[in-house]
Amino acid sequence: MDPRGGIDLGGTKIQAAIVGADGEVVGADRRPTPTAGGPEDVAQAIAASLAAAAAEAGVETAALAGLGIGSPGEIDAASGTVSQARNLPGWEGSFPLGPRVGELAGVGRVAVGNDVDVATAAEARLGAGRGHDSLLGVFWGTGVGGGIVLGGRPWSGRGAAGEIGHVVVKLGGRRCPCGRRGCMEAYAGRAAMEHRARKLVEEGHHTKLFHLMDKHGRDRLTSGIWSRALEHDDRMARELLDEAVEALGAGIASAANLLDVDVLILGGGLGLRLGEPFRARIEAAMAPHLFSDDDPPALVLAQLGDLGGAVGAALLAGDGAPAAADG
Amino acid sequence: MDPRGGIDLGGTKIQAAIVGADGEVVGADRRPTPTAGGPEDVAQAIAASLAAAAAEAGVETAALAGLGIGSPGEIDAASGTVSQARNLPGWEGSFPLGPRVGELAGVGRVAVGNDVDVATAAEARLGAGRGHDSLLGVFWGTGVGGGIVLGGRPWSGRGAAGEIGHVVVKLGGRRCPCGRRGCMEAYAGRAAMEHRARKLVEEGHHTKLFHLMDKHGRDRLTSGIWSRALEHDDRMARELLDEAVEALGAGIASAANLLDVDVLILGGGLGLRLGEPFRARIEAAMAPHLFSDDDPPALVLAQLGDLGGAVGAALLAGDGAPAAADG
Repeated sequence: MDPRGGIDLGGTKIQAAIVGADGEVVGADRRPTPTAGGPEDVAQAIAASLAAAAAEAGVETAALAGLGIGSPGEIDAASGTVSQARNLPGWEGSFPLGPRVGELAGVGRVAVGNDVDVATAAEARLGAGRGHDSLLGVFWGTGVGGGIVLGGRPWSGRGAAGEIGHVVVKLGGRRCPCGRRGCMEAYAGRAAMEHRARKLVEEGHHTKLFHLMDKHGRDRLTSGIWSRALEHDDRMARELLDEAVEALGAGIASAANLLDVDVLILGGGLGLRLGEPFRARIEAAMAPHLFSDDDPPALVLAQLGDLGGAVGAALLAGDGAPAAADG
Repeated sequence: MDPRGGIDLGGTKIQAAIVGADGEVVGADRRPTPTAGGPEDVAQAIAASLAAAAAEAGVETAALAGLGIGSPGEIDAASGTVSQARNLPGWEGSFPLGPRVGELAGVGRVAVGNDVDVATAAEARLGAGRGHDSLLGVFWGTGVGGGIVLGGRPWSGRGAAGEIGHVVVKLGGRRCPCGRRGCMEAYAGRAAMEHRARKLVEEGHHTKLFHLMDKHGRDRLTSGIWSRALEHDDRMARELLDEAVEALGAGIASAANLLDVDVLILGGGLGLRLGEPFRARIEAAMAPHLFSDDDPPALVLAQLGDLGGAVGAALLAGDGAPAAADG
């Protein structure tokens, strides 16, 4: 079988991967997502990233057996259209991302899926979820996304299942970027944590977070900046991450009490960057809330790392479902 | 097809039903669960209740096509054994409830299942869940139990799914009867609410709750007592139920954000007794926490009332699965 292409489209970066028949990555490219312009600029950047990855693999993009894109926003799988992707430039409306990238790259079959769902599928089939019948993927990054596999199949409910970031962990609690109160993401999401840090600085508290951000040429608190601040023993970073761990512990335990899945998988930018020490801390924070505390479900780190989303997107293309759009 | 028998075994009452081929109830009996003695006494009370229901239906128990029992505690479906049913007298250990009741009633096929799961199955097949592919049943009573149906099939995870009562709604919050902190049940379970009311009285607060309890010859705050206290405009009852509604709103919304099921069904002793006004209040309390707030899932009342558990247990017998024990 010819290799397939996969794209993980995020608010910060575009990750492209060329994936062989057994899920092995034979070429990859990573570049920043355009921060200005609009959907057409993003489509062109995706096509360029795909071409670079294909060149590394020694194939033409037109020779790919298929291409999958994992995208934020609202996805219409049948048409390959993406709407209201608010983390992407000028994307308040709808754009036929699948067909347009197919056209630019000369690929006939382009499937578009939800970014969290494709990352979950990749971990389920090729990563930490292999051999498990049911799992919950928790992607801890800018927000906190969740993907569910039950009985070996993705569970999407009426189309919006897996919103673990918006499980309530504290009635009347902190305001979440989504506008609601007390969501897990209000304490654990990187965007919410940065918002909180800025507010604390305004109130006169001290932190190295923004100094480190400037020093490393960032315009926001990336996972790497949080990690570096911990290395500098920054008190605010430590306290905000303590709150994040406590919220993740309660929210993931709540999901485990409800779903009782075989395995819980921790991924996402912060999850991968902070790695094993934080996996262990979140597991410990879950313990007091777990109903099946004599047989707790395992919390494990995602295994496919930064490439998980792109590999999952390539799997999407290989399945032929959701329906591929002919570009 | 011959009628089947169903038993809903609770800490307070035993409900027996004889159910015809289309799920219609052709005989029923309800009696208190023995509060002293042990499992053998409970088994005999079940057999007596079944005989009374069968007499009403004009059949012999030995002529039933099967018998199902919905029970609290830990169930071993294969052997029909019930363990650690702490709401039942002298039931810290294990007892072969299915085989023993089969022996007493002369019924060859006795299936034993989880009480909440069978009540959910009944609502899914014959009640408020008919025609829906996925649902969450929330049984608001002494505790708060949950039953899940996804893709038309019960979801039990590793065996303990559906523990919606122990979803965390308030980090660091009130102590739950389960020993954990901040569970939904810590605010909404009838046992937790009674515990809280007793504590408030000790602290010098006033309420008509315990006066009404004594007047109606109860030894604890039943759903009927809570309902009467509201009719008397009792402030403590009102405030504790306000907290319960707020906790139920957050916990059920969290579950909906995660599972995105077609329909949410509210049952249980308190749910059925307080009925439509409280269904509407819980729905309103969910709204601020729902991620899909432009397309909220429906919250509806259970339709099978007090008989739901017994009817669901009878369905269990009809399915032949879990494996029936030969008495």
